[in-house]
Amino acid sequence: MAERTYLDWNATAPLRPEAREAVVAALGAVGNPSSVHAEGRATRHVIDEARRRVAALVGAEPGNVVFTSGGTEANATAFCPTGPDNVLLVSAIEHPSVLAGGRFPADRVRQVPVGPDGVVDLTVLERQLAGGGGDGRRVLVSLMRANNETGVVQPVAAAATIAHASGALLHVDAVQAAGRIACDINALGADLLTVSGHKLGGPTGVGALVRRSDAIAWPAPLIRGGGQERGTRAGTENVGAIAGFGAAAAATGRDLAAEGRRVAGLRDGLEARLKAACPQTVIFGAAAERLPNTTLFALPGIKAETAVIALDLAGVAVSSGAACSSGKVAPSHVLAAMGVPGALARGAVRVSLGYSTLEADIERFLVAWRGLADTLSKESRGMAA
Amino acid sequence: MAERTYLDWNATAPLRPEAREAVVAALGAVGNPSSVHAEGRATRHVIDEARRRVAALVGAEPGNVVFTSGGTEANATAFCPTGPDNVLLVSAIEHPSVLAGGRFPADRVRQVPVGPDGVVDLTVLERQLAGGGGDGRRVLVSLMRANNETGVVQPVAAAATIAHASGALLHVDAVQAAGRIACDINALGADLLTVSGHKLGGPTGVGALVRRSDAIAWPAPLIRGGGQERGTRAGTENVGAIAGFGAAAAATGRDLAAEGRRVAGLRDGLEARLKAACPQTVIFGAAAERLPNTTLFALPGIKAETAVIALDLAGVAVSSGAACSSGKVAPSHVLAAMGVPGALARGAVRVSLGYSTLEADIERFLVAWRGLADTLSKESRGMAA
Repeated sequence: MAERTYLDWNATAPLRPEAREAVVAALGAVGNPSSVHAEGRATRHVIDEARRRVAALVGAEPGNVVFTSGGTEANATAFCPTGPDNVLLVSAIEHPSVLAGGRFPADRVRQVPVGPDGVVDLTVLERQLAGGGGDGRRVLVSLMRANNETGVVQPVAAAATIAHASGALLHVDAVQAAGRIACDINALGADLLTVSGHKLGGPTGVGALVRRSDAIAWPAPLIRGGGQERGTRAGTENVGAIAGFGAAAAATGRDLAAEGRRVAGLRDGLEARLKAACPQTVIFGAAAERLPNTTLFALPGIKAETAVIALDLAGVAVSSGAACSSGKVAPSHVLAAMGVPGALARGAVRVSLGYSTLEADIERFLVAWRGLADTLSKESRGMAA
Repeated sequence: MAERTYLDWNATAPLRPEAREAVVAALGAVGNPSSVHAEGRATRHVIDEARRRVAALVGAEPGNVVFTSGGTEANATAFCPTGPDNVLLVSAIEHPSVLAGGRFPADRVRQVPVGPDGVVDLTVLERQLAGGGGDGRRVLVSLMRANNETGVVQPVAAAATIAHASGALLHVDAVQAAGRIACDINALGADLLTVSGHKLGGPTGVGALVRRSDAIAWPAPLIRGGGQERGTRAGTENVGAIAGFGAAAAATGRDLAAEGRRVAGLRDGLEARLKAACPQTVIFGAAAERLPNTTLFALPGIKAETAVIALDLAGVAVSSGAACSSGKVAPSHVLAAMGVPGALARGAVRVSLGYSTLEADIERFLVAWRGLADTLSKESRGMAA
C-alpha cells in the first residue's frame, strides 16, 4: 500500500506497539488458563496481569472485570432483565449493540431523546424514570460516555445521580471514551461499564464488562458452559487478545490528559481550517463537550459516500459515520436524533485521530478534501451552466 | 521453565507455527473490516481467506461459516428455540456449554444416555425423538463428534439419519474432533457444526458455527448490534485470531489421516505399556472408536488430582478430565454417564497428544508415572504395615 493517512481511529485504532508485543508474547504461552499444571498457571498469570491493567484504567477492582469478546458482547451481557417488569432506558444515540437491548424484549427498551447539541436530555430521563421506576419497576439506564460518531461527551455522572435517586442502575458504554478521556467508574457513578480493546489500541476480539463494586450483581451469563470468569462468562479465555488489551490499557492510561490536549489541538486546527475554507461547513455537536480526537462534519453538496471513496483514492482513510453501519443506506440515527435534516446528515464525514496522528496527517487530509470540494464545485457549476 | 512435556492437547493445543505467523501478520492489518476504505478492505480480505480455510476443513461453503469467540459461544448460539414447544436433546456426555442448553429453558433440555463404552445410545435417541418429535414439536439434537475426556467417537451420521427421519435437526460439537479426524459436514449429515480454533492449533478466542446449506436457517443472533457476519453475529471481528484459526485449519487439514495414524501409534503404545506395567489400569472408552490422540485411564489407588500435581512437578502436563471443569470436586459427568464408579472416576487421568508429540514425550510421561505409582504403592504398603 502506498503512503496512507489513517484518520478512522473511532472505527478501530491501529495496534499500539506495547499491545502488539504483549499479544506476541502471549502467543508463546502454552496451556489452558483453567489447567492446574505449570503451563496453565503461566497463562492464567497473563490474564490476571491484564485484568489488573484494565481495572486500573477505569478505577475498578480487578475482580470486578469480566473479559468478553468485545464491547458488543459486553453490552449484550449487561442488558439482562432481572424480572418481567424490568425496563431498559437507553439514549437515542447509543451504539446499535445498546439499542438492540440485549436480552430485553423490544417492547421493554425505551429511548431517551437528545438535544440538537447531541447531549442526552436529562429532564426527560428524570421524567421517564419517575414514570418507569416509580411504580416499583426496576429500570436499567444505559448512557454512553461519549458518542462514536460526533464524539459528544454525555453527562454520565449527572445521569447516575438521577438514576440512583429513583433506584435505577446505570450502565455506561465507554467504548469510544476509554483511553481518550477519564473514565473512572466511581467518578462516573456507573454501576456497569463497557470497554473495548481495539478502540484504545489493543487487538480486536476483546472487551470487558466492569462493575463498580461487589454489591452490584453480575447479569446472568449470556454465554454459559465452563466456569471461566468466575462463572460470569464461559469459554476459554482469549489469552493473546486479553494480554494486548491489558498492555494497551496501561499505555493509554499513562498520558491521557496531555495526549488529549495534543490531539484536541490538531482536531481544533482542522475544524478551523475547514470552516475558513468553506464557511458553510457544519460541524456536528460542536456546541457540546466532545472527545478530543473526533470531528463529524458536512459540507452541503458533498455526499459522505462519495467523499469517503474519493479520499480513500487520495490515500486518506476516514468514514461516514460508524464502521459497523457501513453498507447501510439509512443516514445516521445519531444525527437524526439530533434533528439534523437527512440531506445534510448524508454528507457527514467523520475524521478521528489517535496517538500517532501528526500535523502532517491533517495537512494531507485538508489537501485531499480541498481537491474533492473543488472538483465537486466545478462539476456542479458545469452542470448549472 | 525447565524442559517440559506437554500432553494436554485436548485442553488447548500449542499454537501451530503457521497460525502464529498468520496472527502476527494480521496484527499489522490496520482498519476495521466493516470500513470501506483500503485499510478496511485489506482486513476484510484476511477474514474472507480464513473463512475459506475453515469452511474447507469441514467441507462447507465459506458463506455458511459464522465466526464466534469460540466453541462455547458457537454452541450457545446454536441452541435457540424456534418456538415454545421446541426441545433440545443432548447426549449425557456433552461439553458443559452444550449441557447448559443455550437459550433453551432448562426444562426443555433432555439428555440421551450413553452405554458403558461411552457411545450414545441411538435406540434411546430414536425413542425420545418419537416421543418428542412425533407430536409436532420441533426437536434439535446435539451430539458431539468425539468426547473431550475419553476421545470416544460418536455415531453422528447414524444419529443424523435418525434425527432427520423424525424431522429433527442435528447440531454437532466437533470442537475436539476437527483437525484430528475427518469432520465433513455433509458426510456427517450435521445441520449445524461447532469448531474451535485453539483445539486445532489456532489461537484461543475464536471458533465458528457452520451450517450445512443455505436451506438451514441460522439461529437468531445471540449477540446483536452491528451487521457483522451477515447479521448473524454482531461485534467487530477478531481479526488476528480468525487469521490464525484459518491458518491452523489449513495446516491441520493437509495430513489428517497420516498424522492420525502416527499419533494413534504413540497413544496405543502408551496404553500397552501402562497396562503391561500395571494390569489393573483401566482405560476408559477403549472398547469404542476413539480420537487418535486421546487416552483417559485410571490406576486404582491413584487420585487424579494428586497425579496431575506430581506429574506437573516432574515436568509433565496432563489433566484430570476437562480443563474447563478444573477446580470442581465432582467427578466427571462423562464417566458417571458411562456408569464408572465414583472412586475409580476420581482417578481418571487424561493424556492427549498432538502433532509435535514424539516417542520421547511418551517415554518421559511413563518414567514420571512409574515414579508416582511406585511412591504411592510404597506409601500404601507402609501404611498397611
